[in-house]
Amino acid sequence: MSHNSFGHLFRVTTWGESHGPAIGCVIDGAPPRIPLTEADIQPFLDQRRPGQSRFTTQRREPDAVKIVSGVHDGMTTGTPIALIIENTDQRSRDYANIADRFRPGHADIAYHWKYGIRDPRGGGRSSARETAMRVAAGAIARKILPATVVIRGALVQIGAHRIDRSRFDWDEIPRNDFFCPDPVAAAEWATELDAIRKAGSSIGAVVEIQATGAPPGLGAPIYAKLDADLASAMMGINAVKAVEIGDGFAAAALRGEQNADEMRMNPDGSVAFLANHAGGILGGISTGQPIIVRFAVKPTSSILTEVAGVDSEGRETPIQTKGRHDPCVGIRAVPVGEAMMACVLADHFLRHRAQCGSFTPASLPLPTNITTL
Amino acid sequence: MSHNSFGHLFRVTTWGESHGPAIGCVIDGAPPRIPLTEADIQPFLDQRRPGQSRFTTQRREPDAVKIVSGVHDGMTTGTPIALIIENTDQRSRDYANIADRFRPGHADIAYHWKYGIRDPRGGGRSSARETAMRVAAGAIARKILPATVVIRGALVQIGAHRIDRSRFDWDEIPRNDFFCPDPVAAAEWATELDAIRKAGSSIGAVVEIQATGAPPGLGAPIYAKLDADLASAMMGINAVKAVEIGDGFAAAALRGEQNADEMRMNPDGSVAFLANHAGGILGGISTGQPIIVRFAVKPTSSILTEVAGVDSEGRETPIQTKGRHDPCVGIRAVPVGEAMMACVLADHFLRHRAQCGSFTPASLPLPTNITTL
Amino acid sequence: MSHNSFGHLFRVTTWGESHGPAIGCVIDGAPPRIPLTEADIQPFLDQRRPGQSRFTTQRREPDAVKIVSGVHDGMTTGTPIALIIENTDQRSRDYANIADRFRPGHADIAYHWKYGIRDPRGGGRSSARETAMRVAAGAIARKILPATVVIRGALVQIGAHRIDRSRFDWDEIPRNDFFCPDPVAAAEWATELDAIRKAGSSIGAVVEIQATGAPPGLGAPIYAKLDADLASAMMGINAVKAVEIGDGFAAAALRGEQNADEMRMNPDGSVAFLANHAGGILGGISTGQPIIVRFAVKPTSSILTEVAGVDSEGRETPIQTKGRHDPCVGIRAVPVGEAMMACVLADHFLRHRAQCGSFTPASLPLPTNITTL
Amino acid sequence: MSHNSFGHLFRVTTWGESHGPAIGCVIDGAPPRIPLTEADIQPFLDQRRPGQSRFTTQRREPDAVKIVSGVHDGMTTGTPIALIIENTDQRSRDYANIADRFRPGHADIAYHWKYGIRDPRGGGRSSARETAMRVAAGAIARKILPATVVIRGALVQIGAHRIDRSRFDWDEIPRNDFFCPDPVAAAEWATELDAIRKAGSSIGAVVEIQATGAPPGLGAPIYAKLDADLASAMMGINAVKAVEIGDGFAAAALRGEQNADEMRMNPDGSVAFLANHAGGILGGISTGQPIIVRFAVKPTSSILTEVAGVDSEGRETPIQTKGRHDPCVGIRAVPVGEAMMACVLADHFLRHRAQCGSFTPASLPLPTNITTL
Repeated sequence: MSHNSFGHLFRVTTWGESHGPAIGCVIDGAPPRIPLTEADIQPFLDQRRPGQSRFTTQRREPDAVKIVSGVHDGMTTGTPIALIIENTDQRSRDYANIADRFRPGHADIAYHWKYGIRDPRGGGRSSARETAMRVAAGAIARKILPATVVIRGALVQIGAHRIDRSRFDWDEIPRNDFFCPDPVAAAEWATELDAIRKAGSSIGAVVEIQATGAPPGLGAPIYAKLDADLASAMMGINAVKAVEIGDGFAAAALRGEQNADEMRMNPDGSVAFLANHAGGILGGISTGQPIIVRFAVKPTSSILTEVAGVDSEGRETPIQTKGRHDPCVGIRAVPVGEAMMACVLADHFLRHRAQCGSFTPASLPLPTNITTL
Repeated sequence: MSHNSFGHLFRVTTWGESHGPAIGCVIDGAPPRIPLTEADIQPFLDQRRPGQSRFTTQRREPDAVKIVSGVHDGMTTGTPIALIIENTDQRSRDYANIADRFRPGHADIAYHWKYGIRDPRGGGRSSARETAMRVAAGAIARKILPATVVIRGALVQIGAHRIDRSRFDWDEIPRNDFFCPDPVAAAEWATELDAIRKAGSSIGAVVEIQATGAPPGLGAPIYAKLDADLASAMMGINAVKAVEIGDGFAAAALRGEQNADEMRMNPDGSVAFLANHAGGILGGISTGQPIIVRFAVKPTSSILTEVAGVDSEGRETPIQTKGRHDPCVGIRAVPVGEAMMACVLADHFLRHRAQCGSFTPASLPLPTNITTL
Repeated sequence: MSHNSFGHLFRVTTWGESHGPAIGCVIDGAPPRIPLTEADIQPFLDQRRPGQSRFTTQRREPDAVKIVSGVHDGMTTGTPIALIIENTDQRSRDYANIADRFRPGHADIAYHWKYGIRDPRGGGRSSARETAMRVAAGAIARKILPATVVIRGALVQIGAHRIDRSRFDWDEIPRNDFFCPDPVAAAEWATELDAIRKAGSSIGAVVEIQATGAPPGLGAPIYAKLDADLASAMMGINAVKAVEIGDGFAAAALRGEQNADEMRMNPDGSVAFLANHAGGILGGISTGQPIIVRFAVKPTSSILTEVAGVDSEGRETPIQTKGRHDPCVGIRAVPVGEAMMACVLADHFLRHRAQCGSFTPASLPLPTNITTL
Repeated sequence: MSHNSFGHLFRVTTWGESHGPAIGCVIDGAPPRIPLTEADIQPFLDQRRPGQSRFTTQRREPDAVKIVSGVHDGMTTGTPIALIIENTDQRSRDYANIADRFRPGHADIAYHWKYGIRDPRGGGRSSARETAMRVAAGAIARKILPATVVIRGALVQIGAHRIDRSRFDWDEIPRNDFFCPDPVAAAEWATELDAIRKAGSSIGAVVEIQATGAPPGLGAPIYAKLDADLASAMMGINAVKAVEIGDGFAAAALRGEQNADEMRMNPDGSVAFLANHAGGILGGISTGQPIIVRFAVKPTSSILTEVAGVDSEGRETPIQTKGRHDPCVGIRAVPVGEAMMACVLADHFLRHRAQCGSFTPASLPLPTNITTL
């Protein structure tokens, strides 16, 4: 049992606070003899790194990762992989005025009631800075998965504005500051976010993560379901309040025949699904179809707008948060969600290999998924 | 690591298939000297039991639970509590025609690809029958929690029809067959479900679970967050496709100041929250406010309507499921969701006691929650 | 975390008390499609069963195991395997006089101080009866291991009398009542044990378990060492007070060159070890040599001889234990030790498969072990 | 599940190789608000540090520990505590000649067969250097335990020479280079070890660890027994081949009445044990008596004496290990054994608090232990 580890066979333990000397993680269970250098990890950290546009926090750090254990001559050795990122742009003075105040909607007061102590500098352990280590772990998880697996994320909603799915184009993602697959929405979001940023406010968002090419058989009944593990992984990302798989909440409104992902046989003898309401998971086990997860990110509670709070002495006090913050934390949650998807899949890939070896039943070929989203 | 256990300090392991001789569970970690008899568990099982109205499966079983270990002279001994429920109304012939066919939207094909073998009788291990043991475990979990904790569930949506929250009344729950808190909605649902049932179809639903009176401090950063564990617990219930905490997906549309649960001090020195967008959880830790979770249940794939499937020999085949099934599995998911809430809270109650003892910081009194839903 | 489970990927959870209605276990993680019936398990239970000679407790029970979950058409399905053995020869009246007394050397008082309650009938949960489920689990573990693995146990010491290792012969084991590999020692032990039995006393013993044919690579640094897991498994058997691997305590007296298991190459290119001081484990990982474990079993504290104890009211009281007991519990510990060896190896077999797949380095053939014991 | 973590509620994860840039650990589950600085940890590291006498390896490093997470204003915060020690005196050239050779009795070949790759510099992950982190973790574990708990270790045997227990005196420990409680033995050992050191050989040893003042109730049946966890912890220390509790292997030679730790009542109403054959543990649960563990440490396989080995190409080769090594690794195993005792007790202290709260049954006062060793 651990408060700071996730995964079972691909097991990640993180440590570090926002304004401590460094953050780090230990990855246990990675197979031996996988080529691995910092260059495999850094690009994913760069995607999540703050300060890359005016729409994310202006904290500027290189987030340069160092591998300090578990790799020899550029190959994993099967022993624990330790990663460290030094913190270089802490400005703890920013937080002096909220050390004894509890921001509404923030973890401050919950930590206080639980532990009776907290590190207030930059949110301490509750800071989204910790997610850098998840992104680093995700980069390693990707190397464990079969090469067929492609994991991608997109921001599909900011505030009340959703993308138009008919315009969904993965190639648009790198062309804007939002991981947005819809160029029209991206332009609108820029305008909206500028207004929010200038107002010192923040806004929520919805992130979608897709994994294609994952083999069937990942996950397990009853309490190791792939969807349950994905739900836990995504809900555990800072500020996430909701998770859905496939049709998600919309499935509540469907009838059985509408929700059925019907099947037929392809000429090559493989199975074709005619739809993917299930989001690639049935009975907690992957079907070979695209695995689709969406999660909602609330607006950050660190805002310039004054709200009514209390302090540790039990006095009412107005609260205004002046540090550097993301107007829409959902943006930087995209690479984090991708990383969590990679980690969960890698964990279940190893779990499947443990229990079932390399077994694939001969009688029924694996699916060719013809669904379009 | 386990595929069939959940919880860490209040740890539940279940076993059994729908049409085997029995189902059972083992509960490890329950404190000693808690009064416990079958009578503490049976009422919750009766709530979930099938065959109680025309809106649930017509399988009729007493679901009589037996305690076979861990209790002496009516008191828990601190050793593992084993529970068994005998299966008495299996009709395996119902399933002979689907033994080699894969129902669209059902776990059949995923089990086949993963294991190369499955028990097709009544869904085998993937049957919702397994959830009876969760309900039994939940009854014991409730006895571990402080007496202040009240856990209740309601069905808040069937198909596209949501309740009117202005009519939300817990007292309505036992007056209809749907755990519906809104008498008007209940009447409409009866009509709708009758039509669906007669058509041999099924429909989805949304369940809401609330826990009031839970102490602050349950949960822990970073990977033992209370909301992440609730998400996993609820998503792991059969047919669940989405989970949200507090405002959930609606939080994506909010701005920071709208989402802030502002605070003031009560005259008695306790903290009052002015809203509960967070659903009682901040930073993964409970705040003392009501803990609120909703989850979507898809329509069951076991329907009379013919859909296009394949068989284990790779032949296309129409599929019609003739056994006894629930037209809306969401109904019986209500007591299951309550039980999972109880189990997760009990687990975190023990976890908190382990790490933090009975500590409550003196400087800031616990909250008095004045929020109405 | 669990108090009543062992193993990680081959995970066994047991429940039940000596005088409850039944004992049972749940085995999680067994691979699918392994042929399994009760007939695979029963012979091992029969070896451990009491009442087979005058040297073990006269409690007589068939210990008939039933598989109630996880097997379909004679094959494992990958879902949890549940086993149950009904208790049929409880005589709880035997224990009435010790319900409130604490036998010196027995778990009674430790349970009392920990839990404030205990089931005194037959030792309740602390009874060696629980080990029947370990034996059953071990029978399934053996089916998971490669067919080359042979696990055998022997009693090598009773009281101060050790076997003569020059007479060690596995074929002698079934010819006496002690699992003794030395016919001379077996005859002497019979005389000695008769005297002890008639005196109402008991005696300690040493058990040796060997596993041959296990592949190299089982186990892992640093805290999943094969020897550490074996130490835990054996020390966890009732009444065990010491465990050693290979030369064990005798290694303390050796110099480095004496303790080195030197190697040379066989003509076929495989590695030959010239000795096995290490007991088949180096750095926590198996080497392909025979894995050798010994453990000491203390004399049972349940004796007719009167000893000085106290009762739950804090009064001094002489204690005499009149129930049916084993004069040498070490005898029946032999099949239990074998089972624990099987379970630990199966767990590590699955763990190795998870992390390393089917990898075997091509550059250095696996060992041909030429060591004789 | 983890290969590199131990403990459940006091959970330690270590990383790092002998000749990497640093070694470190993450401690999860430590209670909040415990005063903690590096000065609490460093003295224990200094005890284990190499190069302090001519009887340990001449590698000289300050082993200066840094706390990089989990402490704020000198107090633990309840979040993970991360510790780092930089490696400063690696001389990897020492190991170039054994990079492709497998030392008899060393983990080299086992790692090779398991992983197909290893870091040969200084033994890589298999080096005893990793135990520095266990010692650091143990220092923190001590702060979690009740102040009554005193944990001490001693070397009680080197080679064939045991101490004379009638001369056992804890005060002698700091007066010699061996943690030896017997001044006469210490003098003899100095002579013997000088000879071994000059011969380039090595010798085994036996370590004894005692914990006094531990409360009854630590540990749990069936698979979380305190003695099983201690056995695992001690057997997991590098080079350990045997573990015993209390009388250990000697218990095999005893009769039931000899092994019974009889009890009487003290005038103050507490329980007095008249002996401690059990080593303070009955039924896997502590009794309040001194907890006594001994373990055997084999002679290190890194010796100057030439032995017959093989290389990774399958060629026979004589092996001579020229680096800096301990002639008796048992010496430095003393503080490591103490640390493992502290960690296991702290873990069970938290486990007990989780399940049983602060419960102590009123009917029977806790023991006053009058046993002398």
